[in-house]
Amino acid sequence: MDAAQDSIFALASGHGRAGVSVVRLSGPRVMAALASLTRKSPPPPRLASVRRLYDPQSGALLDEALVLVFAAPASFTGEDVVELHLHGGRAVVASVLEGLSKIKGLRGAEPGEFTRRAFEQGRMDLTEAEAINDLVMAQTAAQQQQALRQMGGALGRIYEDWRQRLMHAYARIEADIDFPDEDLPEDIVDTLRPDMMRLLDEISTHLGDDHRGERLREGVSIVLLGAPNVGKSSLLNALSKKDAAIVSDIAGTTRDVIEVQMNLLGYPASLIDTAGIREAGDSIESEGVRRALDKAHQADIRVLLLDAAAHIIGDGDDPGDHAPVFDLSHLPADLVRLRDDADIILLNKADQLTHPPYGRQPGEERLFVISVTADRGIADLLEALSHRVMELCDVREAPALTRIRHRQALEDAQACLQRYMQADAEHRDPVLAAEDIRMAARAVGRITGQVDVESMLDIVFSSFCIGK
Amino acid sequence: MDAAQDSIFALASGHGRAGVSVVRLSGPRVMAALASLTRKSPPPPRLASVRRLYDPQSGALLDEALVLVFAAPASFTGEDVVELHLHGGRAVVASVLEGLSKIKGLRGAEPGEFTRRAFEQGRMDLTEAEAINDLVMAQTAAQQQQALRQMGGALGRIYEDWRQRLMHAYARIEADIDFPDEDLPEDIVDTLRPDMMRLLDEISTHLGDDHRGERLREGVSIVLLGAPNVGKSSLLNALSKKDAAIVSDIAGTTRDVIEVQMNLLGYPASLIDTAGIREAGDSIESEGVRRALDKAHQADIRVLLLDAAAHIIGDGDDPGDHAPVFDLSHLPADLVRLRDDADIILLNKADQLTHPPYGRQPGEERLFVISVTADRGIADLLEALSHRVMELCDVREAPALTRIRHRQALEDAQACLQRYMQADAEHRDPVLAAEDIRMAARAVGRITGQVDVESMLDIVFSSFCIGK
Repeated sequence: MDAAQDSIFALASGHGRAGVSVVRLSGPRVMAALASLTRKSPPPPRLASVRRLYDPQSGALLDEALVLVFAAPASFTGEDVVELHLHGGRAVVASVLEGLSKIKGLRGAEPGEFTRRAFEQGRMDLTEAEAINDLVMAQTAAQQQQALRQMGGALGRIYEDWRQRLMHAYARIEADIDFPDEDLPEDIVDTLRPDMMRLLDEISTHLGDDHRGERLREGVSIVLLGAPNVGKSSLLNALSKKDAAIVSDIAGTTRDVIEVQMNLLGYPASLIDTAGIREAGDSIESEGVRRALDKAHQADIRVLLLDAAAHIIGDGDDPGDHAPVFDLSHLPADLVRLRDDADIILLNKADQLTHPPYGRQPGEERLFVISVTADRGIADLLEALSHRVMELCDVREAPALTRIRHRQALEDAQACLQRYMQADAEHRDPVLAAEDIRMAARAVGRITGQVDVESMLDIVFSSFCIGK
Repeated sequence: MDAAQDSIFALASGHGRAGVSVVRLSGPRVMAALASLTRKSPPPPRLASVRRLYDPQSGALLDEALVLVFAAPASFTGEDVVELHLHGGRAVVASVLEGLSKIKGLRGAEPGEFTRRAFEQGRMDLTEAEAINDLVMAQTAAQQQQALRQMGGALGRIYEDWRQRLMHAYARIEADIDFPDEDLPEDIVDTLRPDMMRLLDEISTHLGDDHRGERLREGVSIVLLGAPNVGKSSLLNALSKKDAAIVSDIAGTTRDVIEVQMNLLGYPASLIDTAGIREAGDSIESEGVRRALDKAHQADIRVLLLDAAAHIIGDGDDPGDHAPVFDLSHLPADLVRLRDDADIILLNKADQLTHPPYGRQPGEERLFVISVTADRGIADLLEALSHRVMELCDVREAPALTRIRHRQALEDAQACLQRYMQADAEHRDPVLAAEDIRMAARAVGRITGQVDVESMLDIVFSSFCIGK
């Protein structure tokens, strides 16, 4: 038993009233803790057994629970693990957590601490640990699939393969330096060049995925832009009530931003109504427009709403003869840049027209005529949006890069390898070459947790749920 | 296998993101359902086993889960039961529930349906089933203890004992009617009289508990009364931030009622700020006062707030010589009745006095001088309130009557027994006596579910959580 290692406990299932609540314990003292709660010896490993739980100090009966024991190392954390399946009421859960806190050597777990222990005990690498959190956070089917791939080790295996190849190359160069008289090829650095070139290509391709994997993990952002009263909020409401399931409403960082989480064909998106543009109009407020537009630029998809009646030519002049023509050339100065940057342009309030040509306009990839109030053209728009979201998330070669942390490490490795490749082979110092390769290996190793581990663990696990 | 019996499933643990979510299945088809989810044969009963779960139609991997199987009849419901311990994310849980719904013969469970099946399979009586729900709903330690006692069968055993005695008496009278020539005592009805008298006493004592058990289950209601701006809302805020843990804010039946759930020394209370009184003042609004007061009468504790400065005599006249004297005789007409009915009277804003005598007044059981803004006298008040709440819930002879359903059944039984006792022994018709006893037994049997069961099951189980 490692005396320095506390035993930990936490509510692992959801809060609130429920049929069952699961309290999880891990560490060297959990079997003793179970004995003092149940006044019995623990059941055999993995065999679900009914036990009465008593407060370890007052002796009050707390619950009649199902108890599960997982003996180290065959457990989630690799330590001894106990699960208490309680009746899921507030008083029951509170009393059991309080009872546990009275037992010496036990304390409440930090966020992610169970999974951290699983990593520390060698039960999984860091990408797998991160994937568990992604799986819990997954809101849509596509996110779930990506997390499951990564949890299965698919991503970790790629990075570990790269690291192994780098370490192997490094070892060969070092051997050449240390034992120059041994029977090794003279030009070892050059010999390694083709494989390092291939590796650099693989890493660059992986990095050049247009952030699809990260976007899938975090959700595609869609910003609604436009002048006041053009119908942005109504559109937001209409879209979020459509086929797209609303996942939740999130209060924005400022009170002016309304954000709705959507699930579009299994892909996650945030629909954002910016207030800056809403306020814009006269000159003094164009700073507000500029800011909102800057914000919009960070978004993945920009949707500009305009008033259909203000941009129509010929509607009603000759009914039945020809469809109305839209002219976007005379936009107010503030909106011109918005128009150029928009991914989708909507001409709303078309129910005011005599012959509204609802839907996507022929020959126009991004121009839609709609009426939010009359619920026309919205289905077309939703389909186009869903398609675009899917494109932006589509992970062609699974598994994809999923995290900025991984991206940064791979960019470091890429830079090291590029330095290695760019150095002129004639003048290369093998010691410097070895150092480049070693640094690249270290950078890749940071992703799976092979090196420099302790410093990054807090970052990795602090975003987890407590109890996981 | 009972073909008419569907197999059911539900999320049994809490909603929202969590380390683990438990999906529970029960019924004749759950083993087959598990096989089609896991593509493997089920693990041995009660042995926690890791399994990959696949969508039964698309074949998509859904999660890697811990699977538990409980074979009938040794399970919670008495049927075959399967538990899936999933990674607790929204997408994972939704996909597994969706996958289950695609399996023929499976459907989502109704609220309380798992416990209902446990009752129907003879795993527990109705009082025990109700206690499971009480345990999940329990907000405080005292509620938890009462629910655990009832869940352990303590209450059911009392009622079953009464029913057995009644059935035994009934059988003896029936035997006397059917076989008058057998060697039975002549005056059988009179012979039974002493035991029936004792039973009537026991039932009456149980009924005459001043609703302590029911109040403990439902919470003690405390109503704050008083004129506008006397500090009721401030007091509500102050009390709910004190030692008393706030359990939750509940929107009242009308927008005017603010209600805060409190946990006072382990006993549950609702602190209610009525708006009717708040609006009262001139004559036309005294109807509002009357209504609020009527409402207050249904509450367990009434707290009247008054302005200390308006009711003081002698404060500051002779500083240091004598304490101020309070005069409550000149209250506005609307408040006189409130004063008489109040269980606790508070003189607030005493910080405006020269020599405020904070706390409970000497010789006055229910008069307190406080200042909410200065936070003086609040601790005394809270202690008195807690003491009163505890008194109102104190279940002297456990287990207590906990439900209006039980009370009504016992009152029916009591009436039958009283009819039996009141009939003159000389003129008694043994057939009528037998019928009285039989009806009493039936009434008591309704509580534990021995008779007339089906008609009351919907009422009993409809208040449960789904998944329980």
